[in-house]
Amino acid sequence: MSRIGEFEFIAQSLAPLAADYEGAFGLTDDAAFLAASTGLVVTSDTLIQGVHFRTDDPWDMAARKALRVNVSDLVAMAARPHAFLLSIVWPETVSARDQQRFVDGLAEDSAGYGMPLIGGDTTRGGDCLVITITAFGEVAQPLRRSGAQPDDRVFVSGTIGDGWLGLQSEALDLPETERNSLNDRYLLPQPPVALIETLRTSATAGLDVSDGLISDAGHMAKASGVSIDLELANIPLSAAARDWLARQDKRTDAMISLITGGDDYEMLFCCPADRVEALRNSARNAGVAVTDIGCISEGSGVSVRDEKGNIVQILKTGFTHF
Amino acid sequence: MSRIGEFEFIAQSLAPLAADYEGAFGLTDDAAFLAASTGLVVTSDTLIQGVHFRTDDPWDMAARKALRVNVSDLVAMAARPHAFLLSIVWPETVSARDQQRFVDGLAEDSAGYGMPLIGGDTTRGGDCLVITITAFGEVAQPLRRSGAQPDDRVFVSGTIGDGWLGLQSEALDLPETERNSLNDRYLLPQPPVALIETLRTSATAGLDVSDGLISDAGHMAKASGVSIDLELANIPLSAAARDWLARQDKRTDAMISLITGGDDYEMLFCCPADRVEALRNSARNAGVAVTDIGCISEGSGVSVRDEKGNIVQILKTGFTHF
Repeated sequence: MSRIGEFEFIAQSLAPLAADYEGAFGLTDDAAFLAASTGLVVTSDTLIQGVHFRTDDPWDMAARKALRVNVSDLVAMAARPHAFLLSIVWPETVSARDQQRFVDGLAEDSAGYGMPLIGGDTTRGGDCLVITITAFGEVAQPLRRSGAQPDDRVFVSGTIGDGWLGLQSEALDLPETERNSLNDRYLLPQPPVALIETLRTSATAGLDVSDGLISDAGHMAKASGVSIDLELANIPLSAAARDWLARQDKRTDAMISLITGGDDYEMLFCCPADRVEALRNSARNAGVAVTDIGCISEGSGVSVRDEKGNIVQILKTGFTHF
Repeated sequence: MSRIGEFEFIAQSLAPLAADYEGAFGLTDDAAFLAASTGLVVTSDTLIQGVHFRTDDPWDMAARKALRVNVSDLVAMAARPHAFLLSIVWPETVSARDQQRFVDGLAEDSAGYGMPLIGGDTTRGGDCLVITITAFGEVAQPLRRSGAQPDDRVFVSGTIGDGWLGLQSEALDLPETERNSLNDRYLLPQPPVALIETLRTSATAGLDVSDGLISDAGHMAKASGVSIDLELANIPLSAAARDWLARQDKRTDAMISLITGGDDYEMLFCCPADRVEALRNSARNAGVAVTDIGCISEGSGVSVRDEKGNIVQILKTGFTHF
């Protein structure tokens, strides 16, 4: 893209996403001016075509996923979506049609989350799409990973393992409707923004499940200096995941794949025992399913127990930190 | 890089750059909490190896350039450097030595500008280094491109054309010492941070010269709805650029290359006539050379006149917007 092409693309395709944010200056100045009534958190994630999404995934989905993985980080801090920056590297061979599809997806989610685009950069080079989104969220006091206390209950939102099943869906033995719905879960994370107020008022610690439930629980355990003890049977699964699991010969191994697979973009969070009822009421009012999957104790690391109370051995490299 | 490698790299190499910023949480949480006493501006630039810097440029220089082009945008808004995010895509073949060199360069400039690292993302993919830096600057009232008024004087900081000469230095007829010094100007921009206070108190409009003086003047003219009239003979050149120019047969063409070449990272800004003396005093106290190169008038676009008062025709595509 020549610079002329770049300026035109920004003016015609991206500037409309910035129209409602005065400090974005219509994407015409050197920087944007941040305006928030409370404190701001900032997070940034880069998605590379062929690494973080599939080479043949449609670009509107890639754009939306890039925004949503950042929204997931905001929710984890109990911060309300505020605005975002887009830095994009188009591959040399990019077509105007793909660019438009990208913008259409981005515009849809920008409107859906009430997050205007306020700046960034567009460049061209290499042979794969590289999307960096930097998202701002509003919160007076961010929810940290480090606040878990012994005797807190441990909760997770939604269901776990669907993103991993979606990523594997071509290779797995799945009925077609389930394959499609699981693939959608992988393509388009649904970070539970409706849970932000619940997290803000009831949680002691929180993070989003992106690397895999067990790995991310390990991050929380480490940051909080505690042990996280999970009940395998209580980890919530979707109907599609339960059906798939029921068809597997090695059910424990299959379950371990679900809880270590990642790409969930659900929330893992802790709550003191005396606030559990308030938490459940708040989540119910928000329309978000939350499930008690374990508790915090003194110590370190993550343990997972089966229904008989036996420790489940989880032997995976790469994602494990305990 | 496996995720283990990524976490270790962040903890060992990047977290030290975040140590002085409480809201960075040691780069261990989902997002950083921004703390600024005044308003914040935010800007983001992506540099791609082989596009925005040369494939064989050393990585400490690439890191420093990536930070500095963002600092340049902050200065243009009259904002003091506050903090930055780093999102990096390492090429698949990256070596630990190159990564360390990158971090060493980044650490040097992070300390030099007093800008801690507060977050970002590290990934791996493709065959070239992609660096996205998002920089925050503190300012109560950002300096815009759109504030130029008729009869304002037009100033530029430093000298123009050295970055372009540096980029071409291998191909041009240059003595070795000049080649090296100009190459340094290309490798390592020197945005005039000492000028921030002067811009804040005296300028009506400002931007940084990155696309080329004439192109960027065009951006300012368009944003402000005015005409910018420049005197070719007054545009400041370094001794190396003057020497090179004196050796060229087509001197006007050569001069046009210097003022359209880009990569200057100097400031172009405007000042009302009655504030010019205060501006000059302020810049002198800051130790930054500023040169009066023209004036603002009613109208649109950019005109450049030679010493006889004749319009200089500038026929370039791609960068021209007038």
